[in-house]
Amino acid sequence: MKIRAIVWGENIHEKRSATVRAIYPDGMHACIASALNQDTAIDATTATLQEPEHGLTEARLAETDVLVWWGHCAHGEVADEVVDRVQRRVWEGMGLICLHSSHFSKIFRLLMGTPCALAWREAGERERIWVINPGHPIVRGIGRTIEIPAAEMYSEPFSVPEPMETVLISWFEGGEVFRSGMTWQRGAGRIFYFRPGHEVYPIYHQVEVRQILRNAVRWAHTPAPAWRDVAAAPRRPVEQSFETIAAKGPRLHQDGDEGFR
Amino acid sequence: MKIRAIVWGENIHEKRSATVRAIYPDGMHACIASALNQDTAIDATTATLQEPEHGLTEARLAETDVLVWWGHCAHGEVADEVVDRVQRRVWEGMGLICLHSSHFSKIFRLLMGTPCALAWREAGERERIWVINPGHPIVRGIGRTIEIPAAEMYSEPFSVPEPMETVLISWFEGGEVFRSGMTWQRGAGRIFYFRPGHEVYPIYHQVEVRQILRNAVRWAHTPAPAWRDVAAAPRRPVEQSFETIAAKGPRLHQDGDEGFR
Amino acid sequence: MKIRAIVWGENIHEKRSATVRAIYPDGMHACIASALNQDTAIDATTATLQEPEHGLTEARLAETDVLVWWGHCAHGEVADEVVDRVQRRVWEGMGLICLHSSHFSKIFRLLMGTPCALAWREAGERERIWVINPGHPIVRGIGRTIEIPAAEMYSEPFSVPEPMETVLISWFEGGEVFRSGMTWQRGAGRIFYFRPGHEVYPIYHQVEVRQILRNAVRWAHTPAPAWRDVAAAPRRPVEQSFETIAAKGPRLHQDGDEGFR
Amino acid sequence: MKIRAIVWGENIHEKRSATVRAIYPDGMHACIASALNQDTAIDATTATLQEPEHGLTEARLAETDVLVWWGHCAHGEVADEVVDRVQRRVWEGMGLICLHSSHFSKIFRLLMGTPCALAWREAGERERIWVINPGHPIVRGIGRTIEIPAAEMYSEPFSVPEPMETVLISWFEGGEVFRSGMTWQRGAGRIFYFRPGHEVYPIYHQVEVRQILRNAVRWAHTPAPAWRDVAAAPRRPVEQSFETIAAKGPRLHQDGDEGFR
Repeated sequence: MKIRAIVWGENIHEKRSATVRAIYPDGMHACIASALNQDTAIDATTATLQEPEHGLTEARLAETDVLVWWGHCAHGEVADEVVDRVQRRVWEGMGLICLHSSHFSKIFRLLMGTPCALAWREAGERERIWVINPGHPIVRGIGRTIEIPAAEMYSEPFSVPEPMETVLISWFEGGEVFRSGMTWQRGAGRIFYFRPGHEVYPIYHQVEVRQILRNAVRWAHTPAPAWRDVAAAPRRPVEQSFETIAAKGPRLHQDGDEGFR
Repeated sequence: MKIRAIVWGENIHEKRSATVRAIYPDGMHACIASALNQDTAIDATTATLQEPEHGLTEARLAETDVLVWWGHCAHGEVADEVVDRVQRRVWEGMGLICLHSSHFSKIFRLLMGTPCALAWREAGERERIWVINPGHPIVRGIGRTIEIPAAEMYSEPFSVPEPMETVLISWFEGGEVFRSGMTWQRGAGRIFYFRPGHEVYPIYHQVEVRQILRNAVRWAHTPAPAWRDVAAAPRRPVEQSFETIAAKGPRLHQDGDEGFR
Repeated sequence: MKIRAIVWGENIHEKRSATVRAIYPDGMHACIASALNQDTAIDATTATLQEPEHGLTEARLAETDVLVWWGHCAHGEVADEVVDRVQRRVWEGMGLICLHSSHFSKIFRLLMGTPCALAWREAGERERIWVINPGHPIVRGIGRTIEIPAAEMYSEPFSVPEPMETVLISWFEGGEVFRSGMTWQRGAGRIFYFRPGHEVYPIYHQVEVRQILRNAVRWAHTPAPAWRDVAAAPRRPVEQSFETIAAKGPRLHQDGDEGFR
Repeated sequence: MKIRAIVWGENIHEKRSATVRAIYPDGMHACIASALNQDTAIDATTATLQEPEHGLTEARLAETDVLVWWGHCAHGEVADEVVDRVQRRVWEGMGLICLHSSHFSKIFRLLMGTPCALAWREAGERERIWVINPGHPIVRGIGRTIEIPAAEMYSEPFSVPEPMETVLISWFEGGEVFRSGMTWQRGAGRIFYFRPGHEVYPIYHQVEVRQILRNAVRWAHTPAPAWRDVAAAPRRPVEQSFETIAAKGPRLHQDGDEGFR
């Protein structure tokens, strides 16, 4: 069975800005999904902010292996209920790939537990992305560097937790560096942050960027069944202990009580 | 200057339950603070849920190096505003030590980004805590094991992010294991989760537990000044670039705009 | 193409001990290989200490995706040259799975950089292995615990570097705990340590153990091409710089010199 | 008591090269030690390759809290016996700070278990070191960047294990990036790699570099007593079990046997 991916797009600047529309006439989400669908092992569809429940219903998420997220100017408009739903699915094992300005999305900040802040500059400068681990599945088929002719600069410090792996680091013409590809695990879900992608530049049309997007979806897909009870806190009664024990001493909880949350 | 610590207590079971009151007549928070104050390098005070702003005003937190947290039945009563304030201080560099049932506290779950769930059993069973890294500062002065005669059992899987270090793992009489001491870094703040401490057992009177509490406060204290702008996302204008560059290409942002959040 | 795995066995106790031979008449390596070959995606063969170059020639390793290692009483007899060869292939991307007493193998100790020591007891006691991350690919198809009726005990502290992930922790009847499944990355190679497997017990015949062996081989297999120059330290001449720069100042190296190693 | 540090220097280029001698008339090790001794909490001495046992006798190492290492052209001349001794002390809890070209020192490669390779260029180019975690003790008192006017370039990929923390990342004029400050834990010992320091430039005279050296020594110092038995693998007899158990089943080891290594 194919890896079922959704590319979620905020889909606002594509409508407001002729510059963006000229580069991404069908929306950035459609362009990203087309990159994914070049891999016959991936079946990518799209969802946007404007759809009911932002296109991310319980039923649809339940059948999604990897979610790719792009947002920028409307992070606050994403309903908390939907964000909680996505977070739950990540814990259960759905992969999540957060792109560029999605560093400030609700879902990324909730999963990281940190501000996810950075300094920035929009000057069309040159970015050279360095591969830190050339053997990592996410950079399969990529050389040692990727050059982005015109990019928005993001600068360290990037206030995220130490990653599981630092896969990519960017060099900027103006003198900054940035950890542009990092991985984390939260519950059973794999998370990848990938920096490239400012909307006024044709970055999602670039061959190497598209290759990494496909690799990342494959990497973030975990074949194990969902960890459904990841948030459950069951009481294990004495008589169901693995080893035979006798209850002793004072107690706070009565038989049959559930625990506090 | 001494390390300024606050021990925060929910302070409810001590009032409702004669059993708990008999063990902790002044409250669990007072007992824990007394353990910390045995170290002349630490100046520990207390705060409780019932105080205005739960005793955790901006001003007081600004002068706090390490916060120790104990909660169980009233996690939901802690005001979100105070939780956000504590989280912000952790990002800036305040240490945080979460004890026992505080695995489900708002502050711990927010910083972890995961459910922080586990299975449990209250049967007064024997717990043996194994030291995983005998050279770690948190277990200074402790032998290879700590035996708790009567404990509430917590069982893996404990749904937290992979820690920076696994310091302690518990063995339970009924057959379970649990990672009872783990560290994380979030922003500039060091976090330690320490499992021992169910309120109907005299665990915070136990010598080794008290030693670890003191060690943990020393470990969690970071001498660096607060990282005040950890959540700022400043625009760095072209004319303030580190290297001389010229802006080129299309733009989304006008001069002087702040970025989106 | 199938995942090409080699199961390497010391193959000594099977010959010396009737007890071991009764359990593993074809050797432990053959039993483990049979577990792997139950997965149609894996093509597992064997190699032993007694073969020329221990069965691990350059040519054969070059065509191996994952190496499974079992050794106990003859770690010192493994030629350093072969160990270096294996280490090199791990750096390039070959997966490595070290089983049980292989914690003291030369290859494992070299890759970890630590003593890899532990305390032990051979008493046929009960071991219960707890799954720490139920969503991890290595425990796919496994429940929350695996019970080994008779096991050799290994005790923490296990002096290895902090792992990338702690996947399994064991509980022992005699009161100890042990991190029985851990992962690391070294160069492009993924490493998994898996504790079960003392030779006088039929542990590699147990269904769940065999399932984890297969899962681990799939997990350790990285599809990326080998990182051939992982140990190279090339000089990048000024005229091949990514950005145009002029050499300036004093120099230690003459044109064309290689660097020191 | 002060932190007892040794600065170890290869001490060769200072003798052979007039350029190096002009910058470091007393040797690089003396310059580095002078930086450390500006901190009244540190007592730094020096040792060199040319001394008996390279100045690193068992007795001296036993009374050393942190070892700072600088080597370049004579890594191979360091006696294996001394390297093993240093490694053992790191496992026990001695801090280790490896500088610049010491990435290829025997001790660093042994502790990492990886090639520790990189690409390089000696062109006196500008390096800007970015602080990744401004709250980390190692960068206390440092701003957000350090600018080195003339540096030897080191380029990613740097083949080391994923660090515990990435503290510093360098930007180079010629277009490369490098993780210039990283931490690891091996046994009880803390390790810091710090890139700055090519011998034909006056980098160890630079104020910020000297501040980081002092901070790093404080950070690498662990107050806990040495983990003396870190490499021991004791047999724990049945009668000394923590829980009462009866030995059962077949055995490989006779009573009183030590285990295999």
